[in-house]
Amino acid sequence: MPNLKLTLSYDGTDFVGWQRQAKGRSVQGELEDALSRMDKRAVAAVGAGRTDSGVHALAQVASAQIVNHIPPASVRQGLNAILPEDVRVVAVEEAPASFNARHDARSKTYRYRIFNGDTLSPFVRRYAWHVPHQLDLTAMRAAARCFVGRHDCAALQAAGSDVVDTVRTIGQSDWLEIPRVDYGRVLVYQIAGSGFLRHMVRTMVGTLVEVGAGRREPGSMDALLASKRRGLAGPTAPPQGLYLARVDYDPATGALDADRVGVQDGRDILQ
Amino acid sequence: MPNLKLTLSYDGTDFVGWQRQAKGRSVQGELEDALSRMDKRAVAAVGAGRTDSGVHALAQVASAQIVNHIPPASVRQGLNAILPEDVRVVAVEEAPASFNARHDARSKTYRYRIFNGDTLSPFVRRYAWHVPHQLDLTAMRAAARCFVGRHDCAALQAAGSDVVDTVRTIGQSDWLEIPRVDYGRVLVYQIAGSGFLRHMVRTMVGTLVEVGAGRREPGSMDALLASKRRGLAGPTAPPQGLYLARVDYDPATGALDADRVGVQDGRDILQ
Repeated sequence: MPNLKLTLSYDGTDFVGWQRQAKGRSVQGELEDALSRMDKRAVAAVGAGRTDSGVHALAQVASAQIVNHIPPASVRQGLNAILPEDVRVVAVEEAPASFNARHDARSKTYRYRIFNGDTLSPFVRRYAWHVPHQLDLTAMRAAARCFVGRHDCAALQAAGSDVVDTVRTIGQSDWLEIPRVDYGRVLVYQIAGSGFLRHMVRTMVGTLVEVGAGRREPGSMDALLASKRRGLAGPTAPPQGLYLARVDYDPATGALDADRVGVQDGRDILQ
Repeated sequence: MPNLKLTLSYDGTDFVGWQRQAKGRSVQGELEDALSRMDKRAVAAVGAGRTDSGVHALAQVASAQIVNHIPPASVRQGLNAILPEDVRVVAVEEAPASFNARHDARSKTYRYRIFNGDTLSPFVRRYAWHVPHQLDLTAMRAAARCFVGRHDCAALQAAGSDVVDTVRTIGQSDWLEIPRVDYGRVLVYQIAGSGFLRHMVRTMVGTLVEVGAGRREPGSMDALLASKRRGLAGPTAPPQGLYLARVDYDPATGALDADRVGVQDGRDILQ
């Protein structure tokens, strides 16, 4: 039974999220339906990250076992012919039999885009958070870097979560500026880590924007983490700015070819 | 009576085009309704270019006379508060009493975006034409440059048009490449001229893509123009790749501040 590793890009606007739900269009549901049609039996797909409703993906990774031996390039073409235009299969590879996109993921990279300008460009309204007021990027950068390392991130998870182990390791946490585009600038937050709690990236962004607005000190992130209290963090940033940009695996299970899926910098999104 | 010069950006996806129609949402209709609500009387707006259904604008220019004396910055904010999110007023200036956005336009600049790659990014599906096959950009550039100058463009207008004077002057006609974005490249055609016939830019693009695919010689553009026969040109490229990028006026009526609306190169679109 071939075990497939699928790399997907999707516009999250019209989805209830990655995970199949009782009601509404889910990416997992669309993918499983397409795989099942192709393989002529019920196929289940496992996703590396459960993106929420409205959250996008540049390179989500899914694993799925099929029965028929179909060349990977034909799987990709066949699925893209069946899937709706807001989900695309970017790459398909055969993976070792034991490969599981969720359990084997070693690191995930997320991006969060902010459109920082007075008037929101109609072309990015579904693909960024509009923050009209001035933001101090230097302060946001200093604060963002405090998240790098191994921390208890309980203060940054969605209220009401009951995850027991809230310790996570962050390898990268920084802001990139795309100087002048349309009539505003775009700020891109990039964060890579071993794993993320529910709403964690969006809570970080909401908190960092408060730093940028001068309502919070850049040096206050350590105290926030130490408090472990969600109530002390900033608001949850809206979903349309968030992108699952990359998932990394051990070389044994096959590393993602970043060059092919094009996630090197913030410019690639949406161009 | 203040005469206003309004610069607008809109996502053409959900519009029947610029011009008010008996049925459907038009940009002119939305703008006139918003102006009328603000000025508390019926206000008419004249647009520099009549963009077709599905065609976008980065900087369409409109003129409108209002009765009330409202500071331009307040007009902009007020209109943006009323208008739907897919139309934004980017700039408002007071213009001389005689200024007419359509009749005074000296030059218009259009852009056409092609997503050239195997798999169409879900993020650009509404904002570019998907051409999956290989394109020879050098040949397309050579052919594009043949359009520069003063020509009878009858071969390039929509079939069935009854415009008498089909001579137009093209000042710029070139392709720009945005090397690698997502999992394809973006090609941007930029054309500036004194005026354009119906579907002219889209017919040019459809013809230039045939050149890029090797189905037409780059040197054949002069013969095509000389033929004056629409049937000899290529197909009309689809509307979602086209953007009205800039309108220029004589300094007397106020030139557009390109730096503010950000239309210098192809990168700005959509970022």
